[in-house]
Amino acid sequence: MTDPFMLDAIAEARVGLSEGGIPIGSVLVRDGVILGRGHNRRVQEGNPMKHAEIDCLINAGRVGNYRGTVLYSTLMPCYLCAGAVVQFRIPKVIVGEARTFPGAPAFMRGQGVEVIDLNLDACAGMMEEFIGKYPALWNEDIGT
Amino acid sequence: MTDPFMLDAIAEARVGLSEGGIPIGSVLVRDGVILGRGHNRRVQEGNPMKHAEIDCLINAGRVGNYRGTVLYSTLMPCYLCAGAVVQFRIPKVIVGEARTFPGAPAFMRGQGVEVIDLNLDACAGMMEEFIGKYPALWNEDIGT
Repeated sequence: MTDPFMLDAIAEARVGLSEGGIPIGSVLVRDGVILGRGHNRRVQEGNPMKHAEIDCLINAGRVGNYRGTVLYSTLMPCYLCAGAVVQFRIPKVIVGEARTFPGAPAFMRGQGVEVIDLNLDACAGMMEEFIGKYPALWNEDIGT
Repeated sequence: MTDPFMLDAIAEARVGLSEGGIPIGSVLVRDGVILGRGHNRRVQEGNPMKHAEIDCLINAGRVGNYRGTVLYSTLMPCYLCAGAVVQFRIPKVIVGEARTFPGAPAFMRGQGVEVIDLNLDACAGMMEEFIGKYPALWNEDIGT
């Protein structure tokens, strides 16, 4: 594991899991400083829009501009979260894996976003275990 | 004005305005029934992700599937909200106007979403007045 901020995103995912939620975590970073962190809270808050990246961006607050930021996520962002990346002009996204969910990397790249997939076993394993245990929850709306 | 649900979306926008917020409103409808309603709450909650459509979809709750739904918005959805439409497979979007903000109609249409722009003076006028009074607030992040 080379990127310490991905460890923070994984830690967020584990917090979500400990709350009975879906284990996806995210952090927003600029100049080596975490501006916000979050995790999926669909189950915890009954909120289908509270994906990890959205929760993270909410917790970062009214940043104003996102120049120079990097959004980390343990899982490739779906169109909702990719839409946030594109709309707020977050220039770079680093993800833990895209094996368990393909997400929207082509959409982001087509809009000029740099997308790096670390393809980590730790992230994929966490999701595979969760999906195996709770397939109905995982497939409730979009599989995130 | 022919579509009563757009009147509900406009009413939501006016509630937002009365709270000191950005006047954009939204309702989610299925089979003639409103499943959720909402308005932009960036100012009210310090939450830059609380666009009208996202607030509406949060308030609709864990719908599960969005087949047969129509999302109304007083303003053309941005990429964040368009991303939600695409990801949750909301098949139809009806907007009040796209004069004051272009949004992401081509993205939605390219993903198979039906997008109808009613091009209403009532909606455009509300936004023009707001933007004229509060340009810094409007331009804080993405102009929505």
